[in-house]
Amino acid sequence: MTPEAPQKLHRPFSPDLDAILGVPAHVLDHGFVRVIDYMGDDAAVVQAARVSYGKGTKAVSDDRGLIRYLMRHEHTTPFEMAEIKLHLKMPIFVARQWIRHRTASINEYSARYSVLGREFYVPEGHDLAPQSGTNRQGREGSYEPHDALVLRQLIEFVSDASFDTYERMIDDKEGGMALSRELGRIVLPLGTYTEFYWKVDLHNLLRFLRLRTDPHAQKEIRVYAQIIEQAVKVWCPYTYDAWLSYQKNAVTLSAEMLKVVRALVNMPAGLDRQSVVAAAESAMSQRERLELAEILMGE
Amino acid sequence: MTPEAPQKLHRPFSPDLDAILGVPAHVLDHGFVRVIDYMGDDAAVVQAARVSYGKGTKAVSDDRGLIRYLMRHEHTTPFEMAEIKLHLKMPIFVARQWIRHRTASINEYSARYSVLGREFYVPEGHDLAPQSGTNRQGREGSYEPHDALVLRQLIEFVSDASFDTYERMIDDKEGGMALSRELGRIVLPLGTYTEFYWKVDLHNLLRFLRLRTDPHAQKEIRVYAQIIEQAVKVWCPYTYDAWLSYQKNAVTLSAEMLKVVRALVNMPAGLDRQSVVAAAESAMSQRERLELAEILMGE
Amino acid sequence: MTPEAPQKLHRPFSPDLDAILGVPAHVLDHGFVRVIDYMGDDAAVVQAARVSYGKGTKAVSDDRGLIRYLMRHEHTTPFEMAEIKLHLKMPIFVARQWIRHRTASINEYSARYSVLGREFYVPEGHDLAPQSGTNRQGREGSYEPHDALVLRQLIEFVSDASFDTYERMIDDKEGGMALSRELGRIVLPLGTYTEFYWKVDLHNLLRFLRLRTDPHAQKEIRVYAQIIEQAVKVWCPYTYDAWLSYQKNAVTLSAEMLKVVRALVNMPAGLDRQSVVAAAESAMSQRERLELAEILMGE
Amino acid sequence: MTPEAPQKLHRPFSPDLDAILGVPAHVLDHGFVRVIDYMGDDAAVVQAARVSYGKGTKAVSDDRGLIRYLMRHEHTTPFEMAEIKLHLKMPIFVARQWIRHRTASINEYSARYSVLGREFYVPEGHDLAPQSGTNRQGREGSYEPHDALVLRQLIEFVSDASFDTYERMIDDKEGGMALSRELGRIVLPLGTYTEFYWKVDLHNLLRFLRLRTDPHAQKEIRVYAQIIEQAVKVWCPYTYDAWLSYQKNAVTLSAEMLKVVRALVNMPAGLDRQSVVAAAESAMSQRERLELAEILMGE
Repeated sequence: MTPEAPQKLHRPFSPDLDAILGVPAHVLDHGFVRVIDYMGDDAAVVQAARVSYGKGTKAVSDDRGLIRYLMRHEHTTPFEMAEIKLHLKMPIFVARQWIRHRTASINEYSARYSVLGREFYVPEGHDLAPQSGTNRQGREGSYEPHDALVLRQLIEFVSDASFDTYERMIDDKEGGMALSRELGRIVLPLGTYTEFYWKVDLHNLLRFLRLRTDPHAQKEIRVYAQIIEQAVKVWCPYTYDAWLSYQKNAVTLSAEMLKVVRALVNMPAGLDRQSVVAAAESAMSQRERLELAEILMGE
Repeated sequence: MTPEAPQKLHRPFSPDLDAILGVPAHVLDHGFVRVIDYMGDDAAVVQAARVSYGKGTKAVSDDRGLIRYLMRHEHTTPFEMAEIKLHLKMPIFVARQWIRHRTASINEYSARYSVLGREFYVPEGHDLAPQSGTNRQGREGSYEPHDALVLRQLIEFVSDASFDTYERMIDDKEGGMALSRELGRIVLPLGTYTEFYWKVDLHNLLRFLRLRTDPHAQKEIRVYAQIIEQAVKVWCPYTYDAWLSYQKNAVTLSAEMLKVVRALVNMPAGLDRQSVVAAAESAMSQRERLELAEILMGE
Repeated sequence: MTPEAPQKLHRPFSPDLDAILGVPAHVLDHGFVRVIDYMGDDAAVVQAARVSYGKGTKAVSDDRGLIRYLMRHEHTTPFEMAEIKLHLKMPIFVARQWIRHRTASINEYSARYSVLGREFYVPEGHDLAPQSGTNRQGREGSYEPHDALVLRQLIEFVSDASFDTYERMIDDKEGGMALSRELGRIVLPLGTYTEFYWKVDLHNLLRFLRLRTDPHAQKEIRVYAQIIEQAVKVWCPYTYDAWLSYQKNAVTLSAEMLKVVRALVNMPAGLDRQSVVAAAESAMSQRERLELAEILMGE
Repeated sequence: MTPEAPQKLHRPFSPDLDAILGVPAHVLDHGFVRVIDYMGDDAAVVQAARVSYGKGTKAVSDDRGLIRYLMRHEHTTPFEMAEIKLHLKMPIFVARQWIRHRTASINEYSARYSVLGREFYVPEGHDLAPQSGTNRQGREGSYEPHDALVLRQLIEFVSDASFDTYERMIDDKEGGMALSRELGRIVLPLGTYTEFYWKVDLHNLLRFLRLRTDPHAQKEIRVYAQIIEQAVKVWCPYTYDAWLSYQKNAVTLSAEMLKVVRALVNMPAGLDRQSVVAAAESAMSQRERLELAEILMGE
């Protein structure tokens, strides 16, 4: 178990990720994603897994195969061994969703301590959409250009008015009211931009990405997640591929769905397809039946 | 180690806490704290500690003494064995501070899913205060009644205007724009009320309370913390007393402060007090010297 | 959003779980599982989810349906709102696996503080099995009665010798060596029994159960997990059923497996089944092909 | 808030830590500590803090002062922004204490998967000590050389016997019993060496070090903590100094102790020292009085 011929280590680095270190990728109207630093990469995942398996690991010949094996069998701890730190700027309502992912470290700009700049989110016309009729927590459809313009103006107008009030209240020049910043901010809109450092390990980042690149995630967080997904692809290409196969593009069949699929696949010749499926489906709700049909037909 | 004569257990309960279960304590203009449920109490802390100590625990005779011992020596795990669940309603800017305490479970009202009611925080006149000159993240002093009124009107006016815009944009009646709720909310002010369930163990709750009942915490979160502190006093009286002694009302002396205190306390007669202290203080910054003076003089 | 007519709450309780509170269920040769306390049940999950959905939740009519919906869509936070506390006694090598689940609270018997009793695990004859040839981390097959007996005697003999040495070294009677307990214990076998309190929320417990009731988990931890699984069934029956459908008995199809399944299910009449599957399977490793075959054939 | 003139970043590195990367520092008879990788250093702490403070941070002029300020006021999140990864080899009874620190990532050698080498801890003669009479969880005093030798031989003898049995049971050569590794290991002593990768952020590492370099920690874990402490000193010298001042060498005075100290320090001339102290001390237990005396006298 002792490392034979322990030799000087060099910190692993990813030239492709190094190339974009510190360079902001712009998101929404005023936001960005910047990679600040990272520790380890695919090799760090493999290295940690090989400690677990000890001498028994020779069976698995290559790094790519080992990473796919780990991802497929939910051996998640080696993926905690790589870490990334991002500088993010985003509207507060997006940050509120972000922060629900608890297994990460955060340092956010303090609006008690410092003044917030006049930057707030105004969606592009094509991002404005009416409440979805089928999905209670989503949008659907689009607006005529004129209506989109009206909405944009409403958002801009009232957000500007909020910042006007904020600045007037905290004005600390001669004759200003000099309200404390911690109170002045309470009139600012949820679309106001904030920024923070965010440090997270690869395992928890991938979980974040699976949930936040999903079509059900709100579009305004999804666009951040998509940019980070591209950084992961550059940083840990083997892990990224395995994640596509076994997480992002994988589907879970419930016990009841699995029965239907087995009936369909193993159906002996001569049986009536309709009645076989109907029998197997009887244990499922209408909604689950639709979900299964979607899974089997593809997008 | 086997429990001899294992007998039917009854769930421990706290009659005083049961008496207020579900009853909202009002906070700020529209907020509340409600205790929803709990598990264990002082007895659960003691019970867990006695498992750790096994037969060796007889030395410590009583529950109160054992709890004080655990708290004094930072044996924190037994305090994780009691749990409480609260229903809280508070302005979003307060919820944003709250949620930074990661070791807790949360379910918050979803403004993607449902419409937010027209409830926003307008500070009372006596809570409005100018930016502190000495504390960059605090308030200090007070306003003349007229100025306070103007500030309250500004806050109320612009918050109402934000809600007007929100309601107009998401209006889904005939002829309304029916904007999706997840987008409409972006104009709402940070003072808008939200509500959530919050479940936390006693150890992490006490840490929350130490930080958030501190005079440096923003007043608007402090008033919530103070109400919860009173619930803890009722729920776990021994733990609460120990926490007052060893956490809330305790002070930490840095290595440098300790030298000064030792010099002061052990000073041989005949020595010049001033020069002794000056020598010991030389390792401290001006700010630390002031902090030590405050500690030694008391409030 | 204010609770209209806030009324006195009573703590939810589960009569069926109350009936076994404190009663040890025996596991292995000296171990047990005892439910000590709990907070909430299915109703607590539903209650928390309804806070998130606000007024929008009426669509989902019943508790059972809502719980299945939450589980199917990985809305995990409401399942954190129920909590359970167990008293567990198990061999140290099992406890070492147990403790890897970090999102839980633990108070373990201290072998620095108190003497460990002479209790160690000796597997039953039918639990002894040779190293698996196919699974590097498992056992497979069985022993002739005589060989099993020899193995049991070897384990018992050397474990007893270890305890003899332990007791001799820490003997603090006149003439004994009175070695400190924290050092004496280092000779004790990994099969020595320890005990601890373990407190965990329902979401994290279900994750533990999915991993530790899996056939790949070591049998000695699986038998504990199976007993706890039965307690969950009694405590939160709706959640338990949903977990069976969407977690325990569900399967995940990788992106590549999904392609094969779609090809099989949607195959137009007249096409050669073999070649369709072969084409779709070309992206999969041999091991994945076997896994898919198992999934589609069933146990 | 946008980074003006965003420029190419280089990953911060610590030349002094780089110099020892991968080089094992030997601990106990077969253990080691190796630094494998790290992310950030003092500069990363400062960088994160300045994001929080925004423009308001200019007041604090230098990095060292800012780090001391953060540590003194328990602003802990910036210290989560630096990370370190270690390769550790230690006896299992030490690893069991180590793993109680939950906020870290671990990959441990699997004794289900691979065979454990014959390496177990045998304390040096001067590390063997009788059970402490005053501290139930500690050792005290020393042994005559002959007695120490007897103890070492007892430990060595029975540990070797355990490994003999282990190897005999899992022997998979012709005629061996080929017991599965996951069962064979149960006879191995708690002193058996294991190894693992451990990744932790600076904040949680410092908390670990405060608890595990404490004289009350078991010596066998303390020696590991002391080596890691030296690595932190090299890696983050400002943070290390601040930690010495405000954590490791700081003391906490309880509310009751503080009263006594204030009475002593502020005693008006002419008052009887004894009676002043006696009055203030009446609220303290005997044990607390002794602890205060120790604090005020120093070692």
